[in-house]
Amino acid sequence: MSEPSKHRFIEALYQRPHDGVPVWFMRQAGRYLPGYMSVRSKTDFLTLCRTPDLAAEVTLEPVDKFGVDAAIIFSDILVPLEGMGLKVEFTDRGPCMSAPLDGAADIDRLVISDPIDDTGFVMDVIRAVKERAAGRVPVIGFAGAPFTLACYALEGSPSKTFARAMSLAYGDPPLFHKLLDKLSETIIAYLKAQVEAGAEAIQLFDSWGGMLAHDTFGEYSLAYCRRIMEALDGCGVPRILFIKGAGLRLDEIADIGVEAISFDDSLHPAEAQRIVGDRAALQGNLSPHALLGTPDGLRERVRGILDVLGSRPGYVFNLGHGILPPTPVENVRAVVDEVHAYPGGGR
Amino acid sequence: MSEPSKHRFIEALYQRPHDGVPVWFMRQAGRYLPGYMSVRSKTDFLTLCRTPDLAAEVTLEPVDKFGVDAAIIFSDILVPLEGMGLKVEFTDRGPCMSAPLDGAADIDRLVISDPIDDTGFVMDVIRAVKERAAGRVPVIGFAGAPFTLACYALEGSPSKTFARAMSLAYGDPPLFHKLLDKLSETIIAYLKAQVEAGAEAIQLFDSWGGMLAHDTFGEYSLAYCRRIMEALDGCGVPRILFIKGAGLRLDEIADIGVEAISFDDSLHPAEAQRIVGDRAALQGNLSPHALLGTPDGLRERVRGILDVLGSRPGYVFNLGHGILPPTPVENVRAVVDEVHAYPGGGR
Repeated sequence: MSEPSKHRFIEALYQRPHDGVPVWFMRQAGRYLPGYMSVRSKTDFLTLCRTPDLAAEVTLEPVDKFGVDAAIIFSDILVPLEGMGLKVEFTDRGPCMSAPLDGAADIDRLVISDPIDDTGFVMDVIRAVKERAAGRVPVIGFAGAPFTLACYALEGSPSKTFARAMSLAYGDPPLFHKLLDKLSETIIAYLKAQVEAGAEAIQLFDSWGGMLAHDTFGEYSLAYCRRIMEALDGCGVPRILFIKGAGLRLDEIADIGVEAISFDDSLHPAEAQRIVGDRAALQGNLSPHALLGTPDGLRERVRGILDVLGSRPGYVFNLGHGILPPTPVENVRAVVDEVHAYPGGGR
Repeated sequence: MSEPSKHRFIEALYQRPHDGVPVWFMRQAGRYLPGYMSVRSKTDFLTLCRTPDLAAEVTLEPVDKFGVDAAIIFSDILVPLEGMGLKVEFTDRGPCMSAPLDGAADIDRLVISDPIDDTGFVMDVIRAVKERAAGRVPVIGFAGAPFTLACYALEGSPSKTFARAMSLAYGDPPLFHKLLDKLSETIIAYLKAQVEAGAEAIQLFDSWGGMLAHDTFGEYSLAYCRRIMEALDGCGVPRILFIKGAGLRLDEIADIGVEAISFDDSLHPAEAQRIVGDRAALQGNLSPHALLGTPDGLRERVRGILDVLGSRPGYVFNLGHGILPPTPVENVRAVVDEVHAYPGGGR
């Protein structure tokens, strides 16, 4: 890649003027895409994550098809847990743990994963994507935040009540912190390795941080996001933080000092702008549900967001969370086209 | 009941001074209680809802056991859907629809349920509870809000993505409104019948309203809660509105003009007080997860809330949402005792 710093996506994350609003989507390489489904019909989820050529193909499908402005590597937030000593399975109903953590001995046994020995295939995916992308778009690396990973590790599978994880959080805070601590060290090394392998931006996903109460959010979600983001400060790539469901906490999130904050659809974009100001670039926040509707209504909602944030240099168009499997491909294309047609964006 | 207006729970909902902070819990009659489990071991969920003697027994278990200050009738928010023409089933994994709504014809076919013909057993439960309570505590009637019921009716079972419901909401708004409209008429008649049967307060639960985006919440959740609450205005009992996950919307909720707002654990109680002021009584907001922890930590959190809201006449202690099945009984007792020991509450 000859001029990586001139990609509009990277420029926007650094709040520098550029040539138009960049757009990408969380879960843009996923089950709504025919190419992805075709690959998955022949390959299970974990094999796909571990096979750089296939993962790179799937990663770049939305770039080739829609012209999105960034490629997020195909992987899963649970991938680094295996190197810690947890067994992850990917079932039809989503990822789960064959043996969820149960008690202090299980947590004591966990090790800090070595990012190269245990998850070197992720670094190979990054290199494969960069080679295929050939400088067209920057490559985003990512990881799950400690709180979200701790919930998975304790619950075993996605939970409605988080009763097992919260029993530990409220019942034995030091032990819960020990788990979050080990996860943090693993994630810091994992993200640093992704940057060394060539990731040009990184995003940290705290998918479940927003379900914490006002008096535990700071301790269990935000503090560990801060720790990871601070450890990545100065690594040479912009850092994006996404804590889903934390619209009420945007001010505290902005205080961390990351380059960019991804925010969900609970907040009006003008409200997010008012709260964050120029402390960080903003990324968001179209509802993924809007992509299940009519193209006309959809384009109107896209323009509504652009009219608030589109002329801000520090803005990346994205969804409030991931694309849903039943999303029509033509609706995704309509959003990309509408964003790219926005006059004067990013200047 | 000789002096119904002197119950501290009712007084608090009307923001009138009384003799101590009232406390009850959402899902206080549920799977964490041995008496409830014993009844359920012999009776399926729907039979329990339809058998006034058993439902009253289960309803009053937390009153007898802990001394909570109100009894919410044992029932389920899906109960009134059957009279509309939907078939509800209660499985081990929760309530579901054997044939979820699919398309305009299904929605056209739905009728407004007659509260006496179709759900007269709920009114019998209210009468049975009142007879057994014998004036010790007031009886709360309740219903689910149209948006939450529409999601159930369209999804069939609790959903992670709400893709079917949101496809209709974004894809065919007039049809979605038609469904919400029929649900509203059913719920208004249902709640009025509960008041006529003797319910001394009513609570409307919009369990999923908070998942709507900032630009659809007003249209699909709040407008219908307002309509129902306005239809119940002047019915002679205080109205409590609970929209879970809508901490960001508390100001709009307070604008409706209900007697009381139940709020979840996303907001600091002082923040809720600042936003709502004296527009409504407040009910909340201990995290149900806190009841999975140690009794000492739990009592400290209870006192933290009481120190902010306990001396406000318009305050009812409750959780941010329902009690979870693994909750230890002694923790529930500890909360009730701590609330009742609070000096000078409610004056």
